[in-house]
Amino acid sequence: MLMRRNPQLNAHGELIHLLSIEGLPREVVTQILDTASTFLSVSDRDVKKVPLLRGKSVFNLFFENSTRTRTTFEIAAKRLSADVLNLDIARSSTAKGESLLDTIANLSAMQADMFVVRHSESGAPYLIAQHCAPHVHVVNAGDGRHAHPTQGLLDMYTIRHYKPRFQDLTVAIVGDIVHSRVARSDIHALTTLGVPEIRAVGPKTLVPGDLRDMGVRVCHDMSEGIRDADVIITLRLQNERMSGAMLPSSGEFAKSWGLTPEKLALAKPDAIVMHPGPINRGVEIDSAVADGTQSVILPQVTFGIAVRMAVMSIIAGNSA
Amino acid sequence: MLMRRNPQLNAHGELIHLLSIEGLPREVVTQILDTASTFLSVSDRDVKKVPLLRGKSVFNLFFENSTRTRTTFEIAAKRLSADVLNLDIARSSTAKGESLLDTIANLSAMQADMFVVRHSESGAPYLIAQHCAPHVHVVNAGDGRHAHPTQGLLDMYTIRHYKPRFQDLTVAIVGDIVHSRVARSDIHALTTLGVPEIRAVGPKTLVPGDLRDMGVRVCHDMSEGIRDADVIITLRLQNERMSGAMLPSSGEFAKSWGLTPEKLALAKPDAIVMHPGPINRGVEIDSAVADGTQSVILPQVTFGIAVRMAVMSIIAGNSA
Amino acid sequence: MLMRRNPQLNAHGELIHLLSIEGLPREVVTQILDTASTFLSVSDRDVKKVPLLRGKSVFNLFFENSTRTRTTFEIAAKRLSADVLNLDIARSSTAKGESLLDTIANLSAMQADMFVVRHSESGAPYLIAQHCAPHVHVVNAGDGRHAHPTQGLLDMYTIRHYKPRFQDLTVAIVGDIVHSRVARSDIHALTTLGVPEIRAVGPKTLVPGDLRDMGVRVCHDMSEGIRDADVIITLRLQNERMSGAMLPSSGEFAKSWGLTPEKLALAKPDAIVMHPGPINRGVEIDSAVADGTQSVILPQVTFGIAVRMAVMSIIAGNSA
Repeated sequence: MLMRRNPQLNAHGELIHLLSIEGLPREVVTQILDTASTFLSVSDRDVKKVPLLRGKSVFNLFFENSTRTRTTFEIAAKRLSADVLNLDIARSSTAKGESLLDTIANLSAMQADMFVVRHSESGAPYLIAQHCAPHVHVVNAGDGRHAHPTQGLLDMYTIRHYKPRFQDLTVAIVGDIVHSRVARSDIHALTTLGVPEIRAVGPKTLVPGDLRDMGVRVCHDMSEGIRDADVIITLRLQNERMSGAMLPSSGEFAKSWGLTPEKLALAKPDAIVMHPGPINRGVEIDSAVADGTQSVILPQVTFGIAVRMAVMSIIAGNSA
Repeated sequence: MLMRRNPQLNAHGELIHLLSIEGLPREVVTQILDTASTFLSVSDRDVKKVPLLRGKSVFNLFFENSTRTRTTFEIAAKRLSADVLNLDIARSSTAKGESLLDTIANLSAMQADMFVVRHSESGAPYLIAQHCAPHVHVVNAGDGRHAHPTQGLLDMYTIRHYKPRFQDLTVAIVGDIVHSRVARSDIHALTTLGVPEIRAVGPKTLVPGDLRDMGVRVCHDMSEGIRDADVIITLRLQNERMSGAMLPSSGEFAKSWGLTPEKLALAKPDAIVMHPGPINRGVEIDSAVADGTQSVILPQVTFGIAVRMAVMSIIAGNSA
Repeated sequence: MLMRRNPQLNAHGELIHLLSIEGLPREVVTQILDTASTFLSVSDRDVKKVPLLRGKSVFNLFFENSTRTRTTFEIAAKRLSADVLNLDIARSSTAKGESLLDTIANLSAMQADMFVVRHSESGAPYLIAQHCAPHVHVVNAGDGRHAHPTQGLLDMYTIRHYKPRFQDLTVAIVGDIVHSRVARSDIHALTTLGVPEIRAVGPKTLVPGDLRDMGVRVCHDMSEGIRDADVIITLRLQNERMSGAMLPSSGEFAKSWGLTPEKLALAKPDAIVMHPGPINRGVEIDSAVADGTQSVILPQVTFGIAVRMAVMSIIAGNSA
């Protein structure tokens, strides 16, 4: 049988890169979540460092700017005692016409141990993982509309923290799904962890029907979408990516799809509300909900550090 | 008795944030200066680090750019063994329309231990201190025209180093006082430490008469202002903030208010000359004075590191 | 006898700054290369750090932007356990009109231990070394067209690694030599190390005849230039510095002076091919050569980290 190996795993099935949740075995996802929970206590300690990555060099390669995500990876790496190098890629050699792969080859030759990559083009982290030296590990920190696996994993960590039985859950993902790499990663993760009902909720222009092929229930009606949900993941309306007459204005969007206390009342009484941030208050989520008792948006951020520590420490411990 | 507690102090009167020198008890100011003197020797040692903030995460949040001030805080934090995160705030989520308080809530959720805040709007560090999680400490690194307390404290450290008896001193602050948060912080600190004569010296457009309400002697005559002074604090002429017909050109300003050797001769023979930097040579201060034997401008910089280490280590040791 | 001492050496002839390879004794160059080889193994270890610069503050002062070079110095400093401060000089006080020397005086007063300086003006690192406090060491990371000594040293390290007997070598430097500080540093280093034949190869507009005064053989014919060479150093065509009718287009340049497999066949069969990077594929070097078995371009990068660690640790250990 001819089969291309999952490029994220080594011959023993161990994680060596984190590129996408798609194709990750459930045991690997669970290993990451379990490891993350051991790191949560690290962040609570007075001295928040563990020496797992001491002497390792982690390069933040953000071809697309994201201060928030870069910061979470920088904190995670420093709490593991790594040396962190932030490369201002926009001003670097790529600006001098150097190709992406030449840049990567050069950084590998500096004996980097890990690249954390954010790129506007889908697949860039795969390309890098395929071409970098075998001692280098790659973490996808968001590529185009494709994937944002650490966000997906921290979302799973958050859900498991509040609702430990994935097999009993109804999870509604609401809003601009078509532009969202977070939604895509969440759907793969929820599927892998055995969530029986995953709903994609939003207007036809933002929630494509072919999501059904991924086993998702597509809801173009808000009430139907969030009724009796255990978990509601609201998504940022990517104003900057919206254009064209087919798409609603943010005001129109808010009216139909913004999560208000009234709409939230349709979900289970103990439903939790999540958001990858940064939130547009009054657009996809009302302040009363974002700041309300059911919101777990800030715990998501805290868990995100622990999950990134887990991913980094696991892949750094495995050989290609 | 109903009384709003000073937000910088906890219920035991211990410093938990440094927002302004106004309202700080003299004992707290003195504690900072005394602690700083223990750190001065650290900077002279071969290994310049002490482990007081090991494992702590210090976030530099510079909403207004200041490489120099940011660098002094970064050095201070690293000498205390903290992890330092520099956030490029201008390019971050605030640019995506996120509110200041949402940004702060998110960073708090990353288990930050300290925010060093520079902001163009007066009061922003107070707002942050009021809303951040209780485990986070805030240091004001300059807010609008309001305050620059670490500069004020390092100025006091410098004065005490050369002129230990505050109660005997005449201190002249010369120049653009109306735009200067440094002047405001210095005046509060000098008052708190019992300096009997504080003079604000400059043209009417730059030295408002209502400073008299703070117990300051306002001098619109240069000779009167610096005569017999023990300490002369010259201020940077904020060219970038000057506009309008009422204000002097920098040439006119220099002629009347720039500190030359001739004018300096009016002060006490052992008077010291200070400046918060960066200096405009030939404008508010002549090169002959800035580089002369009475200048303590560079020692101010050295003391500034020790004072910032003192502030950070003190507030990190106290609980809200 | 009146003689101005080499500003890079102290009274004992020990290296205290690295400003230029010109004037460095052969023993000092050899000491750097020997020390670098001890650090190469550090970068291969699991924990890549040595505590030689623990508690030292290294300031990267890049007045001219170069992410790649800055990163190599940052990695080198961190592997020596130094604290690294990256100053965004373009946005700093120099932008507020502060003079270079005032900026340097201020940073010295923060008890910096080392300045790594990149500047567009030739001689700037000398000026800084002359005026900074005696406890501060200066490393030139490239100044104008003058010198790039760490690049020159890493090139020597690379040559010695593959061709240990400098006294037997023919080294051809090919391309845009007139604009190249790398070429200048290489020529001084090769001369110091006793290479008998150094060739400068390229068109008259890019290879000035007065290089002959440095003992270099000037070749305006590509075949003559690379025939029987042991080492070929190709140089980046500085497109951004090229203008004017006298200079060839990059297409014309490539045809005559770009290193192709055919031209490389004229050199010794075991000749090595070097390039300081970033490469312009298809201009000064063909992909078949850059990625070929004779290319040592990526090892140059790896050796560069070790050489910079060596320079930093040596100068930090010597007193002015």
